[in-house]
Amino acid sequence: MIIVMEPQANETQIQNVAKKLESLGFKIVFNRGEVMTVLAAIGDKRLIEPASLASMEGVREVKLIQEPYKLVGRESKMEDSVIDLGHGVKIGGNQPPVIMAGPCSVEKGIDGLLQVAYGAKEAGAQVLRGGAFKPRTSPYDFQGLEEEGLKYLAEAREKTGLLIATEVMDTPEIGLVAEYADILQIGARNMQNYKLLKALGKVNKPIILKRGPAASIREFLLAAEYIIYAGNPNVILCERGVKGLDSHYTRNIFDIAAIPVIKKYSHLPVIADPSHATGRRFLIEPMSKAAIAAGAHGLMIEVHHDPDNASSDGAQSLTIDQFKALMSQLKLLCKQ
Amino acid sequence: MIIVMEPQANETQIQNVAKKLESLGFKIVFNRGEVMTVLAAIGDKRLIEPASLASMEGVREVKLIQEPYKLVGRESKMEDSVIDLGHGVKIGGNQPPVIMAGPCSVEKGIDGLLQVAYGAKEAGAQVLRGGAFKPRTSPYDFQGLEEEGLKYLAEAREKTGLLIATEVMDTPEIGLVAEYADILQIGARNMQNYKLLKALGKVNKPIILKRGPAASIREFLLAAEYIIYAGNPNVILCERGVKGLDSHYTRNIFDIAAIPVIKKYSHLPVIADPSHATGRRFLIEPMSKAAIAAGAHGLMIEVHHDPDNASSDGAQSLTIDQFKALMSQLKLLCKQ
Amino acid sequence: MIIVMEPQANETQIQNVAKKLESLGFKIVFNRGEVMTVLAAIGDKRLIEPASLASMEGVREVKLIQEPYKLVGRESKMEDSVIDLGHGVKIGGNQPPVIMAGPCSVEKGIDGLLQVAYGAKEAGAQVLRGGAFKPRTSPYDFQGLEEEGLKYLAEAREKTGLLIATEVMDTPEIGLVAEYADILQIGARNMQNYKLLKALGKVNKPIILKRGPAASIREFLLAAEYIIYAGNPNVILCERGVKGLDSHYTRNIFDIAAIPVIKKYSHLPVIADPSHATGRRFLIEPMSKAAIAAGAHGLMIEVHHDPDNASSDGAQSLTIDQFKALMSQLKLLCKQ
Amino acid sequence: MIIVMEPQANETQIQNVAKKLESLGFKIVFNRGEVMTVLAAIGDKRLIEPASLASMEGVREVKLIQEPYKLVGRESKMEDSVIDLGHGVKIGGNQPPVIMAGPCSVEKGIDGLLQVAYGAKEAGAQVLRGGAFKPRTSPYDFQGLEEEGLKYLAEAREKTGLLIATEVMDTPEIGLVAEYADILQIGARNMQNYKLLKALGKVNKPIILKRGPAASIREFLLAAEYIIYAGNPNVILCERGVKGLDSHYTRNIFDIAAIPVIKKYSHLPVIADPSHATGRRFLIEPMSKAAIAAGAHGLMIEVHHDPDNASSDGAQSLTIDQFKALMSQLKLLCKQ
Repeated sequence: MIIVMEPQANETQIQNVAKKLESLGFKIVFNRGEVMTVLAAIGDKRLIEPASLASMEGVREVKLIQEPYKLVGRESKMEDSVIDLGHGVKIGGNQPPVIMAGPCSVEKGIDGLLQVAYGAKEAGAQVLRGGAFKPRTSPYDFQGLEEEGLKYLAEAREKTGLLIATEVMDTPEIGLVAEYADILQIGARNMQNYKLLKALGKVNKPIILKRGPAASIREFLLAAEYIIYAGNPNVILCERGVKGLDSHYTRNIFDIAAIPVIKKYSHLPVIADPSHATGRRFLIEPMSKAAIAAGAHGLMIEVHHDPDNASSDGAQSLTIDQFKALMSQLKLLCKQ
Repeated sequence: MIIVMEPQANETQIQNVAKKLESLGFKIVFNRGEVMTVLAAIGDKRLIEPASLASMEGVREVKLIQEPYKLVGRESKMEDSVIDLGHGVKIGGNQPPVIMAGPCSVEKGIDGLLQVAYGAKEAGAQVLRGGAFKPRTSPYDFQGLEEEGLKYLAEAREKTGLLIATEVMDTPEIGLVAEYADILQIGARNMQNYKLLKALGKVNKPIILKRGPAASIREFLLAAEYIIYAGNPNVILCERGVKGLDSHYTRNIFDIAAIPVIKKYSHLPVIADPSHATGRRFLIEPMSKAAIAAGAHGLMIEVHHDPDNASSDGAQSLTIDQFKALMSQLKLLCKQ
Repeated sequence: MIIVMEPQANETQIQNVAKKLESLGFKIVFNRGEVMTVLAAIGDKRLIEPASLASMEGVREVKLIQEPYKLVGRESKMEDSVIDLGHGVKIGGNQPPVIMAGPCSVEKGIDGLLQVAYGAKEAGAQVLRGGAFKPRTSPYDFQGLEEEGLKYLAEAREKTGLLIATEVMDTPEIGLVAEYADILQIGARNMQNYKLLKALGKVNKPIILKRGPAASIREFLLAAEYIIYAGNPNVILCERGVKGLDSHYTRNIFDIAAIPVIKKYSHLPVIADPSHATGRRFLIEPMSKAAIAAGAHGLMIEVHHDPDNASSDGAQSLTIDQFKALMSQLKLLCKQ
Repeated sequence: MIIVMEPQANETQIQNVAKKLESLGFKIVFNRGEVMTVLAAIGDKRLIEPASLASMEGVREVKLIQEPYKLVGRESKMEDSVIDLGHGVKIGGNQPPVIMAGPCSVEKGIDGLLQVAYGAKEAGAQVLRGGAFKPRTSPYDFQGLEEEGLKYLAEAREKTGLLIATEVMDTPEIGLVAEYADILQIGARNMQNYKLLKALGKVNKPIILKRGPAASIREFLLAAEYIIYAGNPNVILCERGVKGLDSHYTRNIFDIAAIPVIKKYSHLPVIADPSHATGRRFLIEPMSKAAIAAGAHGLMIEVHHDPDNASSDGAQSLTIDQFKALMSQLKLLCKQ
């Protein structure tokens, strides 16, 4: 930790900061410049709230040196984490990209879902995604089929052999969702629902953690840290676009550089969701290719048997045929 | 709803959109320009997902005309909502600003909290705030005293006559928190935790809803809509800064114009939290004054008996004396 | 300057960085932690491009300690700068707020401008603002009357005694604009037009520098540094809103905390432009009051004799009567 | 244009808006809903400032239907523009990607520049880029060699056969830069320097227009419209990252979806600059691949013979060997 003192700070103020840090077990190195003094405090940041230093008399700024996460970082584990999703499917490291496809919401009547599932399987996807519990911006929008939706998903798994990924929104529902799903998903707007993160740390299934709509990469990694610290190391990070200055042509801004950044700082697998990242169907193909070229460990893509009549997110869903065409292109790209 | 067709859209595509809308009960007006056709669909937006129209062949864009919220809007209730907080304190409309003060976290040992409570009372505050359940970005930061903290707050209420406001983070904890608190608070990072919003709609206590770290005003109002739609009309909105492009000098950007904007579109009371909005102590005074000048119905201010040793947010907390000085200035401003 | 080494950095890499810095005259202090080494380089940052260090082997990050600006900062001048605008009007320090009012664009026919000028004078404004050269997002929008507009402004000054502030867009036009205007304005989109900044450093008139649409406060202060470094110390900074995540209800987000932040770090006067900051007429009054409450040294407000027929920015202009009403309210606020 | 009236708007207010529009030649269609009335105004938007309507009594909002640009849009020209850069190199449409490489700044001593030029040529680049006039955030940073730098570039062209691209910052310098360069570049911070845009519309050389640090795609296209409207149709758009919420790990956020969005709405060629978009060397390779996978017509990459000693942007420059390795990978990708 680096503590930058104000140019006007006097010696007593400098010593007060040093004493406080030393009393907590930090070793202090003084860096006295012509204009200002800078203290380097060597020790475990967790011993102190940096903000409490920042408010001491004479302190201008406190700068952290180490990343605040531990378990998700390369410093605690150098090699890539590879997560076993079941059915022989693995994600992370040098495994080929895992493709997760399916409708935004599981809707009334299982036939559409089965069409998508068969199509996805045929095209080469490994995971069927679909929401039974739906977080919606407006209370007047479709809120999901809940347990009925989970049953449909389980039936689709039985028929196709695909793995099932679905969202859980609230701690009391974890047991129910975990009973049906192979992979549990935390939605973007729940990325900092810390009670949910902690509770999912007790579950023995892989977790897909979606990046919050405006989360920094550091906040994203700290959210994953919550899950691992609570006991579940099988976290898959999902870049799904963040809010930006311009939402006229795309719903979000797809932060594709986050993929290699996360791979540099963390050992966890990272996938991309070009459907939510852009919100527009014509962008799914180029953004899927770009994500794979950037090194993503997998993709999550919205596919619907009849997007014009979808209960949610029709505008960013591919038809089954469009998904098959995309998969052919991705296979060429991966071969290269 | 306005549906803008592509310049190349053909007559069949235009008619397909019109038919779909008519089948749902919308009345259609055609606006045929030289370059493109625009359909106006008159009827209840809730009958359709606009995104599903956006994906139809030939459609360029769907524009909503009406705001998507109902119960929070001026169209459902013209006059300002005034909420009775208890102890004769009312908030909203032309009521004088309600001041809520207290530490970020309730900390071990009740003495500090009592010092703050007595000081706040003396300076003219009506509500004591303090977190017993703490949402923290890192799992290694202080997570709150939980029920013990609630007990401290209740004791401080008994001794000072202040009302108590405290945060609830998860649906299973609502009962416990509601047992102790006069006002329940939803933290910024839970603004779109829809299960929590719905559950708080069933509680018979006023709710402070903090704006999400990057929530648009519309999303903020829709979150309030969830609570009211579930049955609880007593929602107080709290502007607490949003993420912006520049976080070097301030933690967030204080969106002060949101106060009069919300007052124009909604009848709900709106307060400001200059501590979280800026993250820096020297800004609390000018930003408190600015918020009152802009028409805020109240303020929520972090005050700590010893900020340099606070468990959280020390850098953005006032000392008790600084808080008293601020209150003197605000009284002058309100008199004017 | 602080250089954070990677945890894996070896001793040679650490020494290479130290040697490079020493060869440039820096003094090095080593801070060796358990996980990583941090070098503090004491000396003048201007001797090196920090980015060139950042690319050396083994370097994780370079952190600047001192602000990169000098002449605009409090370290070079503790007391507030007070700038003499002419006609006995001074701005900055403890001077009462200076009010600048007028139409966005100077338009065909001088009568409207004169109406605004007489009204502004009567209400207590000191400066008439109006654009003769207009930077417009679209080439099809009104581009300004150019010299004819400058002549109108000069005539309005003669008739009312108001000072004249107007924008200059390009280096070859500086001479012409300076011939007519008392105060030259640099528009937001030219805030980093460095050739213009340098050229205005050679002009003997006060400069209003508007903050760029997405400029950080540091970039804003560095732009002012260009002007002062080139020879003109009379710079007035103008906060006019920055781009934010939500542009649905307001054109920009009014970064009101920037006012006290700038006053803390710089001695220059800082004013606010609530018209551009919000883009909506109903927000000008509350935001003007908030800016004064936050400590602004002045305001720049768009006033038009007939906003519904303005050539530009009608939606964010006050009528003359609305401006008079606002001025009465501001007088009450300043008295307090 | 769509004019949404307030729910409370009375018939006189509605008719006033209609009359004003009719007097300007618009045809009006009334859409009367249960809650509010919406007017569709059919005609040329350029006849009116939409903002002036927005301020009329009873108007809630004005929505534009057509994009405000004309000449850059697909509506004025369906097929892709292919621009001849000279030396047989073409860019746009189905041409293979054009690679532009070179140092951020041209520096003292031509040898380094020649090393880069020979290396770039050998690796397959077609254009040498390098700044002789440098826009720098701080006045204390290196400002460029000016004409001497242009001479070096010309010599490198003569020796290698590469085309030369370099930046022009101010209208009086256009003649000088155009004398030496094959392609003129407008820097990000000058994207809305309208005088410069207009003046470059009179020049008979291709222009690379970089996207402003926070420009929306629409503002970007309107800036290009200025150049074409002034007479020069040969504009190449360059995505170079925009400001985002998180600048901790990357300098900007690389808006890669802008590439296919621009290709959908405009016929102009669009290239990407992964060096400025990310600011970090390790991201140039994955982001170059992603940009090509997303459909970019070319890349602009910073390459330096000795990045650790570069006068600017060393941290985001490749060495010559790294550039050669990147080019091998891109060739594989393009073959696919």
